[in-house]
Amino acid sequence: MVVQAPYLLFIGDVHDTLAAKTAQGVLEWRPERCLGQYRLRGCQVDLGIEDLSIGEAVNAGAKTFVIGAVNAGGVLKENWIDVIIEAIKAGLDVASGLHARLRDEPSIAEAADRHSIQIHELRHSNRVFKTGQGARRPGKRLLTVGTDCSVGKKYSALALERDMRHAGYTVEFCATGQTGILIAGRGVALDAVVSDFISGAAEWLTPATEPDHWQIVEGQGSLFHPSFAGVTLGLLHGAQPDAFVVCHEPSRTAMRGVQAPLPTIGKVIELTLALGQLTNPGIKCVGVCINTQSLDEGPARELLGATAAEHHLPCIDPMRFGTAPVVEEISRQFGGQVR
Amino acid sequence: MVVQAPYLLFIGDVHDTLAAKTAQGVLEWRPERCLGQYRLRGCQVDLGIEDLSIGEAVNAGAKTFVIGAVNAGGVLKENWIDVIIEAIKAGLDVASGLHARLRDEPSIAEAADRHSIQIHELRHSNRVFKTGQGARRPGKRLLTVGTDCSVGKKYSALALERDMRHAGYTVEFCATGQTGILIAGRGVALDAVVSDFISGAAEWLTPATEPDHWQIVEGQGSLFHPSFAGVTLGLLHGAQPDAFVVCHEPSRTAMRGVQAPLPTIGKVIELTLALGQLTNPGIKCVGVCINTQSLDEGPARELLGATAAEHHLPCIDPMRFGTAPVVEEISRQFGGQVR
Repeated sequence: MVVQAPYLLFIGDVHDTLAAKTAQGVLEWRPERCLGQYRLRGCQVDLGIEDLSIGEAVNAGAKTFVIGAVNAGGVLKENWIDVIIEAIKAGLDVASGLHARLRDEPSIAEAADRHSIQIHELRHSNRVFKTGQGARRPGKRLLTVGTDCSVGKKYSALALERDMRHAGYTVEFCATGQTGILIAGRGVALDAVVSDFISGAAEWLTPATEPDHWQIVEGQGSLFHPSFAGVTLGLLHGAQPDAFVVCHEPSRTAMRGVQAPLPTIGKVIELTLALGQLTNPGIKCVGVCINTQSLDEGPARELLGATAAEHHLPCIDPMRFGTAPVVEEISRQFGGQVR
Repeated sequence: MVVQAPYLLFIGDVHDTLAAKTAQGVLEWRPERCLGQYRLRGCQVDLGIEDLSIGEAVNAGAKTFVIGAVNAGGVLKENWIDVIIEAIKAGLDVASGLHARLRDEPSIAEAADRHSIQIHELRHSNRVFKTGQGARRPGKRLLTVGTDCSVGKKYSALALERDMRHAGYTVEFCATGQTGILIAGRGVALDAVVSDFISGAAEWLTPATEPDHWQIVEGQGSLFHPSFAGVTLGLLHGAQPDAFVVCHEPSRTAMRGVQAPLPTIGKVIELTLALGQLTNPGIKCVGVCINTQSLDEGPARELLGATAAEHHLPCIDPMRFGTAPVVEEISRQFGGQVR
């Protein structure tokens, strides 16, 4: 799945930034892919980039109209349909991470076919994958895993990609979820793949490459989440990571969406090492990423220090204090440039 | 997915019994669901039940035309199309475990719509499931797990269901694969479910029930198979088994379809206990099922004895020597009738 840039980011008539988080994530990590924003009357969020009409965006070279707003249930809102059709008529592809399929709206499907544009339904996979093979392949891979869902696995991967590149590594972010695909412009929404092909899809996403090239793979779910551990394990086996970091959110009191206790960071390290050895006997943990935004700076630094001491691993908040200790650990364990 | 019995078993023009194994499995475990066989000219297999024309089968009360033959690639053979359409015109539903979708053949789709019959594409799921919740629910569950794929998990589950019923338990076989669904008449082909919903689909298949009712769940894949472990783990978490048996095929020298070593039975017990505790802290191993058909009776009994001694668990070949020791172990561990 390849989504052509640059994008016109559509955020509809959302009332808070949380509802525009897809667009915000793309803009934060890949501002060069974002030409402008398109807002409906009543929208109370401003991404801080230029408001463009569809015509202006097309004239400026836009290629894809990105649905950057989310809502409960992931439905297609009635008042979005006309503007999506206008974008299609102007020749833009459309990318959507909604649960609802845009093509289930006949007027959108008809316009897309008539104007020969692509609709990227990021949550729905039509692609046929092979089953995973599990064979070792050249290149190096780092996977972000977590104590739970939504603990910063995507952002940790993106921060490590940025900083490893800066340190002189050749790196590539490999997206496994909807927002990640919009950020990278390609990827596989693993949760939408038929279960027989989870690890095969992960292998397709992270193919053989140069021996010193790093693929930084966005993690999904958690080995300890009763809803999604199967996806997490299929990704772990398919990505066969050489290195992983554990992501954690210290204010979480239970697993997201279910009544299950959070595992400790130590348990996640232990189980990831045990299970990951099936397809990469050399798998190593290279650090812990903690989202400390619920803490003041003092307690945040204390928590990072204590966690680092407990696990004898670098422990960072990649969004707050940078990733240097983990990048240095990667260099120590696997070699490669640190400028 | 509910497949109406009785069936007319279609085995096409297959040349050996292996190619008719779907039909044979259904006939072996549920002869009461099978009215007769339908063979094309040149067929070299005889299931040992009556040959019926489609008209005769309908007159005798048949409800579903079951594609009981397999072929490399799971394709729809050209010379099967006319007879499938004839069955549809006579009012029979059609059930297929082929990879190819019958509805992708326009003449079949058109006939199905015109005659308002159902086509059960067992490898393709249209059903929408919820994500798994992981909450404990009443009833007892036994899952068959394996050292590899295709080591007897389905047959072990069916033999245990039969023998536990005979011993006085209320039991129910829960099918998770194509042949299992045809045998039971209902179930979910887990490998066809979108990966986000693996454990949710397993929960749907094994809902809350009476406290002393046993659901005997057909296992899939292996926690040690690099292609399919994600499916296995999602099923383990969703089924939250109280008890499991490990199935093994001693002549296997490598994991099926990949270059990976077989795990030991002990490793499978250990990892299933460790991971299964996430959704059922009381999970117990109640036995080992070995497919000894590659061994003479003496060596077979020796192997079962040695394996039982090594693991301090009953070890059986359910198809050759019966399941009594495992049923007794279930009674010892969980109570319930043994007549």
